Amino acid sequence: MPRHEHVPPASQNATALDKQASSKGPGTIPSPATARGELTRRRILDAAEVVFGELGYYEASISEITRRAGVAQGTFYIYFHSKREIFVELVEDVGERLRAATRVAMADAPDRLEAERRGFAAFFDFAANHRRIYSIVQEAGRVAPEAAQAYYRAISHSYVHGLQIAMEGGTIRTLSPEATAYALMGIGHFVALRWLIWPQENEETQEEEVHLPDDIFNAVMDFITHGLALPAKE
Amino acid sequence: MPRHEHVPPASQNATALDKQASSKGPGTIPSPATARGELTRRRILDAAEVVFGELGYYEASISEITRRAGVAQGTFYIYFHSKREIFVELVEDVGERLRAATRVAMADAPDRLEAERRGFAAFFDFAANHRRIYSIVQEAGRVAPEAAQAYYRAISHSYVHGLQIAMEGGTIRTLSPEATAYALMGIGHFVALRWLIWPQENEETQEEEVHLPDDIFNAVMDFITHGLALPAKE
Repeated sequence: MPRHEHVPPASQNATALDKQASSKGPGTIPSPATARGELTRRRILDAAEVVFGELGYYEASISEITRRAGVAQGTFYIYFHSKREIFVELVEDVGERLRAATRVAMADAPDRLEAERRGFAAFFDFAANHRRIYSIVQEAGRVAPEAAQAYYRAISHSYVHGLQIAMEGGTIRTLSPEATAYALMGIGHFVALRWLIWPQENEETQEEEVHLPDDIFNAVMDFITHGLALPAKE
Repeated sequence: MPRHEHVPPASQNATALDKQASSKGPGTIPSPATARGELTRRRILDAAEVVFGELGYYEASISEITRRAGVAQGTFYIYFHSKREIFVELVEDVGERLRAATRVAMADAPDRLEAERRGFAAFFDFAANHRRIYSIVQEAGRVAPEAAQAYYRAISHSYVHGLQIAMEGGTIRTLSPEATAYALMGIGHFVALRWLIWPQENEETQEEEVHLPDDIFNAVMDFITHGLALPAKE
């Protein structure tokens, strides 16, 4: 997953962090132009992910976030104006990472149905490995509806594009691409909830690895494949 | 919708309410055995629906709920122990109403695919007419995860049952019934969010009627029908 590959944990020292800073692009909010500044921002964001994920939006506090990030509370306000602002930023960040993960997985697929299969596999991996940030996005539906909507609209946007190309190429049935995109997103979300998110919520050992059972994945992909595929020639 | 047909608004007087009280079954929490008592309970629950729906769980207060219900604060505690308890009860109540609405709609369908079509139409009507309670269920994912899970598990339970019968009868393809149930629930949820819930969140006029466009409904049902249908004979 992108985060664990590229972003060092907040507990590492600044010198180690600086080495990797240049690989991180700028965020959506203007931030100090130095690599060190960008890095501190990322560190606060990573700490916020843990704090929001563990405590939920309402229980989370800026002081808890800065404590986890190991920065002074004043430093927080150099990068973010409020708890809500960093929360919204985090939702955007999660969306970008999820889209990147699925995009990479789908890139070399020989056709749209195989692309769906690889994209769904990547999505389920992401959800399994990012249970906490997954629940942050859920909460955004109430806390910051515009951020949650933007998150899903961004996913649907790239989805619609890929479906349209496949429909025009005659490799899948012609349906409303947007309706199809939301149907597919809904399937992924609910299957992830049932087999990846809830089992961990119900266990004390929340860090234990979960994985979507193969028979469930195959049933879901069978349903999707038939839903999208051109009718068999009679 | 069940609520508007059977449950009088909280503003009606007690005499009028009493006439209808006997038609309401008991809730899951022991309540005073009199019709009047059951009615007061229902009245508090209806007020809670409005308050949670408008303010969200964290901003809502018991005093606001009792104010809306027109009862003394002490009366609340005869029926419910806490804000969380009435919230959980409300989520159960919404689930029961939604399941009843779809069950009625699907009852006389000639086959499973037509049953799905009618069930989805009823579900989208319910979501369009109960935008506020829909957002309550969303919030439950964080506030009371066990209530949200129970809500979805109850829906999936009856879904699995119906799918299993159709699969055994050979009228739809054989897939994991539970995976299929969650896939279908996910489709309904995301399509409702995109076309029924978000448009209202974005408008000042939240009370305006929304309706799922026919072409979107037909695309969704086309996808589902092909996903479930037996393969065409070659």
